[in-house]
Amino acid sequence: MSENSDESTAGGVGRRAFLGAAAFGTGAALAGFGGTAAAAATDRAAGAPQVAFPDKFGAFGGGAPGTNNRTEMDLYDCEVEGKLPIDLDGTWFRVGPDPQYPKPDKYAGDIMFDGEGHVSAFRFKNGHVDYKTRYAKTQRWKAQHEARRSLFGMYRNPTTDDPSVKGLSRGTANTQLFVHHQKLLVFKEDSPPVYMDPHTLETIDDYYTFGGKLKSQTHTAHPKIDSETGEYVSFGYEANGLCSKDIHVFSADKKGAVNWAVTVQAPYAGMMHDFAVTQKHIILYLTNMVSDMDRIRAGGVHFSYDSKMPCYLGIMRRGGDGKDLKWFTGQNLFCTHVMGAWTDGDKVTVDMDGGEGNQFPFFPSLREPFDPLKSIGLIRRFTVDLSSKTNDRYQTETIYPMISGVLSRQDDRYHTLKYRWGFINSTGGPGKPAGWAIIDHQEGKTQQCSVPDYSLSEMTFVPRKKGAPEGDGYLIGLGGSQKEAGRSDLIIFDTKAVAEGPVARVKMPFKCVGQVHGFWADAADLPAERQARKI
Amino acid sequence: MSENSDESTAGGVGRRAFLGAAAFGTGAALAGFGGTAAAAATDRAAGAPQVAFPDKFGAFGGGAPGTNNRTEMDLYDCEVEGKLPIDLDGTWFRVGPDPQYPKPDKYAGDIMFDGEGHVSAFRFKNGHVDYKTRYAKTQRWKAQHEARRSLFGMYRNPTTDDPSVKGLSRGTANTQLFVHHQKLLVFKEDSPPVYMDPHTLETIDDYYTFGGKLKSQTHTAHPKIDSETGEYVSFGYEANGLCSKDIHVFSADKKGAVNWAVTVQAPYAGMMHDFAVTQKHIILYLTNMVSDMDRIRAGGVHFSYDSKMPCYLGIMRRGGDGKDLKWFTGQNLFCTHVMGAWTDGDKVTVDMDGGEGNQFPFFPSLREPFDPLKSIGLIRRFTVDLSSKTNDRYQTETIYPMISGVLSRQDDRYHTLKYRWGFINSTGGPGKPAGWAIIDHQEGKTQQCSVPDYSLSEMTFVPRKKGAPEGDGYLIGLGGSQKEAGRSDLIIFDTKAVAEGPVARVKMPFKCVGQVHGFWADAADLPAERQARKI
Repeated sequence: MSENSDESTAGGVGRRAFLGAAAFGTGAALAGFGGTAAAAATDRAAGAPQVAFPDKFGAFGGGAPGTNNRTEMDLYDCEVEGKLPIDLDGTWFRVGPDPQYPKPDKYAGDIMFDGEGHVSAFRFKNGHVDYKTRYAKTQRWKAQHEARRSLFGMYRNPTTDDPSVKGLSRGTANTQLFVHHQKLLVFKEDSPPVYMDPHTLETIDDYYTFGGKLKSQTHTAHPKIDSETGEYVSFGYEANGLCSKDIHVFSADKKGAVNWAVTVQAPYAGMMHDFAVTQKHIILYLTNMVSDMDRIRAGGVHFSYDSKMPCYLGIMRRGGDGKDLKWFTGQNLFCTHVMGAWTDGDKVTVDMDGGEGNQFPFFPSLREPFDPLKSIGLIRRFTVDLSSKTNDRYQTETIYPMISGVLSRQDDRYHTLKYRWGFINSTGGPGKPAGWAIIDHQEGKTQQCSVPDYSLSEMTFVPRKKGAPEGDGYLIGLGGSQKEAGRSDLIIFDTKAVAEGPVARVKMPFKCVGQVHGFWADAADLPAERQARKI
Repeated sequence: MSENSDESTAGGVGRRAFLGAAAFGTGAALAGFGGTAAAAATDRAAGAPQVAFPDKFGAFGGGAPGTNNRTEMDLYDCEVEGKLPIDLDGTWFRVGPDPQYPKPDKYAGDIMFDGEGHVSAFRFKNGHVDYKTRYAKTQRWKAQHEARRSLFGMYRNPTTDDPSVKGLSRGTANTQLFVHHQKLLVFKEDSPPVYMDPHTLETIDDYYTFGGKLKSQTHTAHPKIDSETGEYVSFGYEANGLCSKDIHVFSADKKGAVNWAVTVQAPYAGMMHDFAVTQKHIILYLTNMVSDMDRIRAGGVHFSYDSKMPCYLGIMRRGGDGKDLKWFTGQNLFCTHVMGAWTDGDKVTVDMDGGEGNQFPFFPSLREPFDPLKSIGLIRRFTVDLSSKTNDRYQTETIYPMISGVLSRQDDRYHTLKYRWGFINSTGGPGKPAGWAIIDHQEGKTQQCSVPDYSLSEMTFVPRKKGAPEGDGYLIGLGGSQKEAGRSDLIIFDTKAVAEGPVARVKMPFKCVGQVHGFWADAADLPAERQARKI
């Protein structure tokens, strides 16, 4: 199917008379229409190349048909099996990269995480579930949509962009989302949030700056919500430009008004994917995934893993001027996600999942080959004693070493408090199925939510009701049926009856768009539907 | 998964700890929320039962997850492989039943064809294809959407409806669609068309009556367009109520103004799924699938197959008063779709596909068991000599007996003219793959478009360009990949290079919603996009 000229065909039935699945999937380069179309084109979109993602798995958007979803959907009243908790009233949001357009050949090696953010919402009410997905209509998405082609080059590398998009935000809004001050804020850590209507998923602001008060070019994908005040606490690294060491930390009240902000400095520019907030402290974590200006100038990706560089844990008081920020070193651990954190007197504790080496093989390792064993994520407990003025070391221990996994979560109502219940997407092991592990830090016990023949995405904890005790509720998330070509179910476990298996599943008719993270918003935290647009 | 109480579970891991695909698919009745919800309900939707279609294939909406699609979609710029004809400019529409809600248990045996019409549009332009689907927002769809449950009972049986929907149209708009006078008209033969915007697929009129001029409660799914004038010619059977023998026949000019209408009588009330129009004549065909008032009163489906009843071919002049209508009998053939028809002097010829017995096993056969062999469709040529006043018989012959199939089509520009090129969805046979057969009546030759490991839906012929010779263009239609759990491709064959295999495919990331029929509209026949809503 890669070419139409077939000189060897003479009369009757040619060699391609019964073009089969094999021929469809050969992965040969397609001739495309670039030349022909360009000649006749009256605008750029008219001359845009035919849309052809690579067949090669691992290339940007590459793989078998169905690898990219790209389809905005509305499925009203999903099919449900089991006993869906009838009093659940709220929306489960999720987001992940979904490549909008194939990259030009020279950027075909770009990483999957440069796909445009595609948001899903499962609205639960009265035992019914409505499903909706929309792309976050970022500045980037809109420009590419208009042009019907990719215009942005490599991951976090503006030097590779089409000149026509200079000045536009490169943000993809593809990593995580929160509902706060009645807005659905969608995050990519290289740019400000995108504000979407939580009901319609319409994009209302493609560059949301908290009313102009966000003094950073970036914003993490992992803000936190203060457990007691409902304040939004967040940060941006590389806050003032490519490879900048500036870190902007701020908070906003329940109505979204910025009420505290400082800019501090990192020891070096590198990945700071998540952070922790306690009632008293901000805890920043700098992994040794360094921002690499040389690689950027050469047209490559933004990061390189440098095992010789130290990881740093930075701690400062909330609400201060940032001058008390102190950076601690210790065992180098490649940690991405925070499970929970708290301050107890002068002692700060942060639980994160992480490996001893690079967990992101799609970014180059500078010093040694990627080591899969060292990428295995375990739950690492970081502690720092702040009582000693001279201490500059953090301590680490591996807790629950029998559980390997990634994508740590907790009951999101306990972001800033000492917490009991943690959750992690466990990868399983010999004799141990993969699944959502529930960790009871108080009792030191673990349970596992597994579904045979399903691959589970990240889970989200949903309180049984407003005011339910910590960890009392449901774990929900998507499972892909391995026996049905990846067809998706939304799977619901009751955290108090894990052994019973899922209490319900929402049966989707297709494989849903992929995701990174998800977030539950109680109906009480959503705006009224009809007024959503006016907020 | 049908119940939550599991008294046998004690401690540790219960029997359902690893709820598997097998448990998911047991098909056990679900407890549902009817009782609980009803108590708390403040409106009907709040108390609506959990949405659970039966697992049993053959039951209404029943089968494995994914049997029902129910998802309104927008996929901008589909992935394309091969050489998509860059100068194709128009939209391929398709429609099929897609059950909106499961039926109450007592109607679970209803037929699949009672599903609500779900319309798809593939918009071709500049070598790019945009995909969009929407339900036709019929009166029925809207009432059920609001209630979040099924309110209409059995297929074409209003006695089985919920009292709340009395007076609403039962039409599902699930069978075929045409673009005429710049409107997308979507058909179900028991009701007037639904008018949708051809660009947005927004439903503009849920009961379209040609400006109040349609004097029939019904309208066929198979109108015809006059090859020379562009007139729309159509009819409705059971035009004046359930089991009425009235047939309303009418035409409308290119702007949709009704310019001729008559009401005539059928020998008995029965299925008249398609009809034929020539430059001179209207040809009606009454199959012996009889409308069965006793069965309807007993709460069953509308039709029964009665092999003892004669089939009738009725012929009358176009533009007359209908008094010249004459009914002819001959070999009883169960024919559903017209391939083509013409009048040559006093001789009328109609080609239809059909079997010797019931082709619709989901309707009961009154006299004998359903016979699969007699259901096989072959191309039947009906001829009638009108020169003899006493002749009351039609003649039939089976042409191309080596090709069995259903869903006959032609180059739609030749509806009323002697035609050369016919198309049929061939079912194949021993050593013969299934596929789209192309019949050249002039040369008496056939070709077949097949794709190994794909199941092909009905094809639509697309002219290569405006004014292209008859049959010169493309056959397009959906194929389901048997190796990829039914994932869909839109497959495109060049009618002048069939042996080369498909020239291109549009690679869909999922299994598309099912269809019955499709229709191609050239861009010149679509309204301007921005004015579509105002027409």
